[in-house]
Amino acid sequence: MVKYQASAMDRTFSALADPTRRYVLLRLRDEPGLSVSELARPCSLKLPGMMKHLDVLSDAGLITRTKAGRTVSVHLSVGPMQEAMEWLSRYERFWTTSLDRLVELVEEDGGR
Amino acid sequence: MVKYQASAMDRTFSALADPTRRYVLLRLRDEPGLSVSELARPCSLKLPGMMKHLDVLSDAGLITRTKAGRTVSVHLSVGPMQEAMEWLSRYERFWTTSLDRLVELVEEDGGR
Repeated sequence: MVKYQASAMDRTFSALADPTRRYVLLRLRDEPGLSVSELARPCSLKLPGMMKHLDVLSDAGLITRTKAGRTVSVHLSVGPMQEAMEWLSRYERFWTTSLDRLVELVEEDGGR
Repeated sequence: MVKYQASAMDRTFSALADPTRRYVLLRLRDEPGLSVSELARPCSLKLPGMMKHLDVLSDAGLITRTKAGRTVSVHLSVGPMQEAMEWLSRYERFWTTSLDRLVELVEEDGGR
């Protein structure tokens, strides 16, 4: 099988393929350092359920966890997202081209 | 559970979490309209294996397939990738900020 930047990218996209995990990343973006229970509260998830999602995010390098006493604080780690975005940006010319064509059509229609 | 733009985005990221599927998307970017067997050949995949990957990509809206006689041609469909990239771009300020800080540090070091 042809392998293309296999495992790290696989883990990133796989971790992003879940609404709870994307929700966690969005919350951490706005409120860095939230505890596991603060992350779990708005979801109907018990702590072990949230811990499993955090394990997936951690394995993908998307979060880091630090422990102070009994509280685990969670922080965002954006490197893998940047790499995922760089991968996707290889296709950007397609939607840019479509938009350019649309602008041309509108301009032609305007009589220029 | 908190749902955030659930199913379509889930399918997109999940489809992208496999090196063979990412390879297919890259090949179609450069050679639109390839047949299933042309896509399968460089991988050590038989046609049914490739068909399964194409089903996943099609369910995620990332490709379209057209049939002419006995040949199925595959085309890229970039809409879902654009949406995935828009989702990731919410984090862009983090890596931009880090880069800005780096530039500042280098400039300070240069004595300005």
